[in-house]
Amino acid sequence: MPINVSTALLGQLASGSEFREKLGHVRDSADTLKAKNGAGSDFLGWLDLPESMQSALPTILETAKHIRECSDIVLVIGIGGSYLGAKAAIDFLRSPMYNMLPKSTPDIHFLGTSLSSSALCDVLSLCEDKEVSAIMVSKSGSTLESGLAFRFVRQMLKEKYGDEYGKRIYVVTDPDSGMLKQMADSEGYTVFPIPKDVGGRYSVLSAAGLLPIAIADVDVSEILHGARDAKAQFFDSENHYNACHNYVAVRHLLNEFGKKVELFVSYSPTLTMFTEWLKQLFGESEGKRDKGIYPSSATFPADLHSIGQFIQEGTPLLFETHLHVTKDSKPLVLYRSSEPDGLEYMDGKTLGDIEKTVFRAVIMAHSSGGTPQITIEISERNEYNLGYLFYFFQLACAISGYTLGVNPFDQPGVEEYKKNIYALLGKSEQGDR
Amino acid sequence: MPINVSTALLGQLASGSEFREKLGHVRDSADTLKAKNGAGSDFLGWLDLPESMQSALPTILETAKHIRECSDIVLVIGIGGSYLGAKAAIDFLRSPMYNMLPKSTPDIHFLGTSLSSSALCDVLSLCEDKEVSAIMVSKSGSTLESGLAFRFVRQMLKEKYGDEYGKRIYVVTDPDSGMLKQMADSEGYTVFPIPKDVGGRYSVLSAAGLLPIAIADVDVSEILHGARDAKAQFFDSENHYNACHNYVAVRHLLNEFGKKVELFVSYSPTLTMFTEWLKQLFGESEGKRDKGIYPSSATFPADLHSIGQFIQEGTPLLFETHLHVTKDSKPLVLYRSSEPDGLEYMDGKTLGDIEKTVFRAVIMAHSSGGTPQITIEISERNEYNLGYLFYFFQLACAISGYTLGVNPFDQPGVEEYKKNIYALLGKSEQGDR
Repeated sequence: MPINVSTALLGQLASGSEFREKLGHVRDSADTLKAKNGAGSDFLGWLDLPESMQSALPTILETAKHIRECSDIVLVIGIGGSYLGAKAAIDFLRSPMYNMLPKSTPDIHFLGTSLSSSALCDVLSLCEDKEVSAIMVSKSGSTLESGLAFRFVRQMLKEKYGDEYGKRIYVVTDPDSGMLKQMADSEGYTVFPIPKDVGGRYSVLSAAGLLPIAIADVDVSEILHGARDAKAQFFDSENHYNACHNYVAVRHLLNEFGKKVELFVSYSPTLTMFTEWLKQLFGESEGKRDKGIYPSSATFPADLHSIGQFIQEGTPLLFETHLHVTKDSKPLVLYRSSEPDGLEYMDGKTLGDIEKTVFRAVIMAHSSGGTPQITIEISERNEYNLGYLFYFFQLACAISGYTLGVNPFDQPGVEEYKKNIYALLGKSEQGDR
Repeated sequence: MPINVSTALLGQLASGSEFREKLGHVRDSADTLKAKNGAGSDFLGWLDLPESMQSALPTILETAKHIRECSDIVLVIGIGGSYLGAKAAIDFLRSPMYNMLPKSTPDIHFLGTSLSSSALCDVLSLCEDKEVSAIMVSKSGSTLESGLAFRFVRQMLKEKYGDEYGKRIYVVTDPDSGMLKQMADSEGYTVFPIPKDVGGRYSVLSAAGLLPIAIADVDVSEILHGARDAKAQFFDSENHYNACHNYVAVRHLLNEFGKKVELFVSYSPTLTMFTEWLKQLFGESEGKRDKGIYPSSATFPADLHSIGQFIQEGTPLLFETHLHVTKDSKPLVLYRSSEPDGLEYMDGKTLGDIEKTVFRAVIMAHSSGGTPQITIEISERNEYNLGYLFYFFQLACAISGYTLGVNPFDQPGVEEYKKNIYALLGKSEQGDR
């Protein structure tokens, strides 16, 4: 198994029988998911994406190759589940500094997450004198923020390419309905489907994630491979030990014992966006009916010097879920410095050795401070493991939602804000007349 | 006043007399701070930085100009308070995409926050064939993470510049003691002081913040000007109405009514790092003795599509502190699109108009969901206002710590992790022998 899940301090809070009882509830939830008769069961398409996307893969790869060849810059327009997974994958498998580094693939900018005019201008200014393609991702086809960015991008592409501009646009949306589909049909954009039964935050393994990721020349078939193996291990298997079920049971017990915040901790900027993806997944799936664990994130060691003090000694509100990659991708040896710098005791070690020690020191310190710990060790940074993690957490989240007694596949609370914004914009529009 | 503080929903939780009582405690805390006889009163140098840094300014500006002229890339090495304020300022006043945009000033990369070998290699690889200077920021002079990065950077600079390498290094540290000061003296680095009585998280208005910020050709004298005016308004003034005191009183009341998480919300990526600075400031100052409000952050509208659902309907654990800039810096008009896109009701509006409407819609939605709101309206994005905000929040945090009954200027919990790491590294070193 490419990941290893372990826990610390749980035993001080819950007894073995409490854990077994909770695990029983979790297994019941997993059975509900399997039987496809729980709440939101018309949104279970994500369960089968690791297999069902196989047939779509050749077209995605061919399109990605074409886009790479004709573009200096690719604009990926989307918000929430329409960008988080793709950005997480590119940061993890290439680099968070992907756009700054020399490479044979196009720069990839994510747009449509902001209504800041300066942010939009910054990205559009980079497109001057460059060959640009755009991928617009929206399940419904009518998302306000990304829709606005898309309008500015279309205007820019029309100025660049005239009547041919539609050849530069790829749309990932509901295949049967919605404004985007209509526009694509009349303007000649290429369309990739997000299946009807796949919600935004569970869509990373659909074209919504795979097309942008493939443009960065990442082996997306290995992402699907990892996801398939995670499915076999945690969804299909009847094994008694199921790390995914254990993780869900532990976080529920911790929550019941007053740990209301789950801090997802990464140890490298390459995983920071993955923890953002986790925040959406869990926050939007569980945060309803006055329930849910509040998902927060941190990147260590940077944030040890920020919220480390709070974790150690502040209000005992948190538990941590650490995501740690075991294998160092680029061994950098710390050679002795000719000027004394007080770090001589580390001479000859690699940065990776020291990083592992920091990881151990953190677990020890935060445990001794009374903060419970869940640790997920990831063997190395590769496509297979990322696909495995995506599936592991999606499955954990769905089972967790059922265990909590909520529908993990809807987001009724987001509608409230949308209702307000449409009302306010409509009202001021009338005022303008 | 360039900022305007208001609240919503507090009245449903606390009565007017409860608020007045709490405000009385807050005023007592402010008096303690003024009298300089509270806990940690040997760390109050930050109070006077807006005036005391005036005399240091010419040297900082001259050095910044020299570094700009001889560098393509400036590496700022520091962690926690040694980078957050500077990064927040550059993101807010220039752009979070500063390094990608065409400009007459050097690229500025922040290093020493990570032990990821790939992150370090990415930055070092950008330095090939470029003129590079480095600023090493560490109050104590012995910070592990930044010390390690500094060793790799020295090695790179020696390869580039040979015996002259020391002229490329600027050190910001305790002026009287510590390993960095010793190295600087023997190797010929230029030294800028962080006064003994200024802690890391309160150091943004010292050379630790001002030198890196000035390199981006930001008018740092206006930052100090704003801070001086905030000091006059909220610290020196005897006015009955004090927005800073009100803010502190409100967050304490909300905390006592079960709102254990303060979500700092920005509406533009330009303020995202500022909310990271806030997390360190409040988390490290208040998170002790099992107390403190957990500081979290979000950038809207992006995170409305992530944790928006949780804020609206999840566990009622949060209150929000919104940081909203009123004036749009670059009015972008949304012209009618020739293809119908479902957004026709916004034709002719500016992106800024729509952003303001989203802001109002969010306040309405989250209030109706029962999440209390604190709103801080910032008139526009400029140096003066940023300095004003830095001082406002530092003051609020210090007064808040006293009101909570903790020392807002120490960080005993961070020592636990440091002790562990030194023990583990020492031990494995012995094992190697």
